[in-house]
Amino acid sequence: MTFKILYKDKKTNARLGLLTTKSGDIETPFFMPVATKATAKYLSTDDLISMKAKASISNAFLLSVRPNSETIRNAGGLSKFMSFNGITFTDSGGFQMYSPHIYLKSNDSGVFFKDPLNGEKFFITPEKNMKIQLEIGADVAMCLDTMPLLEHSKSAITEAVRKTTLWAKKCKEIHNNLQKKISKNKRQLLFGITQGGIYSDIRELSVKQLVEINFDGYALGGLALGESKEEEYKMIEISKLLLPEEKPVYLMGAGNPLELLEAISRGIDIFDSRFPTKSARRGTLFTSKGRISISNQKYKFDKSPIDFSCSCFVCKNYSKSYIRHLVSQEEGSGMRLTSYHNLFFLISLLEKVRDAIKKGSFNHFKEKFKKTYKDYINIEEK
Amino acid sequence: MTFKILYKDKKTNARLGLLTTKSGDIETPFFMPVATKATAKYLSTDDLISMKAKASISNAFLLSVRPNSETIRNAGGLSKFMSFNGITFTDSGGFQMYSPHIYLKSNDSGVFFKDPLNGEKFFITPEKNMKIQLEIGADVAMCLDTMPLLEHSKSAITEAVRKTTLWAKKCKEIHNNLQKKISKNKRQLLFGITQGGIYSDIRELSVKQLVEINFDGYALGGLALGESKEEEYKMIEISKLLLPEEKPVYLMGAGNPLELLEAISRGIDIFDSRFPTKSARRGTLFTSKGRISISNQKYKFDKSPIDFSCSCFVCKNYSKSYIRHLVSQEEGSGMRLTSYHNLFFLISLLEKVRDAIKKGSFNHFKEKFKKTYKDYINIEEK
Repeated sequence: MTFKILYKDKKTNARLGLLTTKSGDIETPFFMPVATKATAKYLSTDDLISMKAKASISNAFLLSVRPNSETIRNAGGLSKFMSFNGITFTDSGGFQMYSPHIYLKSNDSGVFFKDPLNGEKFFITPEKNMKIQLEIGADVAMCLDTMPLLEHSKSAITEAVRKTTLWAKKCKEIHNNLQKKISKNKRQLLFGITQGGIYSDIRELSVKQLVEINFDGYALGGLALGESKEEEYKMIEISKLLLPEEKPVYLMGAGNPLELLEAISRGIDIFDSRFPTKSARRGTLFTSKGRISISNQKYKFDKSPIDFSCSCFVCKNYSKSYIRHLVSQEEGSGMRLTSYHNLFFLISLLEKVRDAIKKGSFNHFKEKFKKTYKDYINIEEK
Repeated sequence: MTFKILYKDKKTNARLGLLTTKSGDIETPFFMPVATKATAKYLSTDDLISMKAKASISNAFLLSVRPNSETIRNAGGLSKFMSFNGITFTDSGGFQMYSPHIYLKSNDSGVFFKDPLNGEKFFITPEKNMKIQLEIGADVAMCLDTMPLLEHSKSAITEAVRKTTLWAKKCKEIHNNLQKKISKNKRQLLFGITQGGIYSDIRELSVKQLVEINFDGYALGGLALGESKEEEYKMIEISKLLLPEEKPVYLMGAGNPLELLEAISRGIDIFDSRFPTKSARRGTLFTSKGRISISNQKYKFDKSPIDFSCSCFVCKNYSKSYIRHLVSQEEGSGMRLTSYHNLFFLISLLEKVRDAIKKGSFNHFKEKFKKTYKDYINIEEK
């Protein structure tokens, strides 16, 4: 069994599970840092390990262009290439369909991308994508999907779901065939990605179609893009009603602490997001009392750490005043320290969440956190 | 006594000394990383500590503009501000006279700088500079000097030396006065900077004039700028003949491993340079066999570390293939790993040098190193 639920919360739909992959087991719910090109921005793999990140997600398409899949296969796969001792995920690269400098067009067979550096064109089909992801050798691969944007029309989103299902079927078939001769415990897992924007009927259709194909896990795509939290949580709820209880569910792109707790209480198991590191580079930092903006003038002489309750090495060693200086000078070291802190914050938060689920106190933990954590503490004060 | 010579090499002029500062003692010869704005590029202070850097040098003028001297004084001085447990040096900022986006003009009273970000003008006199450096509170301050460039005419270099001596006298006087009431073991040290390009007569004049003022240590400025190694070593030799034996001598800007060994054998005690980190960011890496360029195609699939004989965490954890990928993608993590390795290499080299001086085998060590270390191993092969 790939996924086993060990504890269920009584007051919410939160659960603690164990996901088994070819590289080992990982407890859910977990948050994984984004390592698009086999490295998190400004952080090295040893940083990920020291912050206890047990998983990371990279972009298969971008890695297949540079360094290329062969280099990574030659290293013994993605985790060995980047010297990571955790679980690796690869996203197909379908997400890049919204990078106008990379995406050209798509049809029922696949997607045309161009290399922004030299103009070289690539046609990525579900077949090619599955081959690439197997060559890169992450523990969990994601289907090639078509992600509509929030502002797209209902008919465009319906069309995106049609294509996503079509490709999901192909991905599953090819992925199965390519791994036929591999023993079960060495197989790469494959997750399907559901779409549907914030339209309940299309989202339900997408979930039903993907469940029929039967994946090792299911992702909710096209969310955490700027829709209201109510809309996002509603999409999680209606999806969870249709998704099999015994399969892990991955909410792609969510990285706000409060959002994570709400999603977990609705039964989400896996998270990734650029938000913590992107915010960090702009000086927006998580603390136990809420988000702060380190650029705020009031921190100029502040000798205290970012967060007294945080046990990361950044909070142990550096003052707000110093971090503020590094961030304002756009020093790479500042980017690293703030990124480290924000990721450490989320990873520790999920550790506490798992602990609370085990102890049966998740709902209490969540409510307490919601009371203390102010999402915009300093942004308002500015 | 500020500086004590503990061992003298019998075959060369190399010596092992102990420099005493208000923050503690440091064994010479040593190499210190450049931390211009109170951080080394892409490296945080914990990185400097873990690579056993026992000293670092920052730029007093730039720090006085951002964050400003008051912020650093409020933190308890530079080393506390950046959470460094080693010895801190500050350069006056005179070096910035060769940054055309910062330097405006100078006269006998001082230098006009402008803030490249907002155009604000600053007039830095020896008086102001000494006050800034004392406020920032490094363990060793450097005099405000006028650094001529290699291509300057002999008369321009003579004029630069005249101004440098004039300012050095003022710096010494003010620095003394400002610290009159401070107990001796809490005083900031002050080093004079000698100039003179590669003209023996002007360089000798500069050294004689500075020695007369009597500083805690002497720096050789305006070298390692592209002159031939023979010219550089000759300037060291003639300067050393005139400098008091019992004073530490600092060769500013030298960071090539072979250059360091040659300078040490001529009696140099202290080094700093941007070269190891600047090279690292371009993928030029030190190894025990010589410099390599990690961008070389031949490393694309190379699973071995940068240097098998290196014990840094980068060499312990990552392959050439992976580092090559990070550097070619211009990832901040790649900049950090390569910078770390190159600095670690130099710091370890100097550790071995000190060990060899203690054991009386420095010359043997140097000759052996020269035989194995090829300065352009891959650049030639490319």
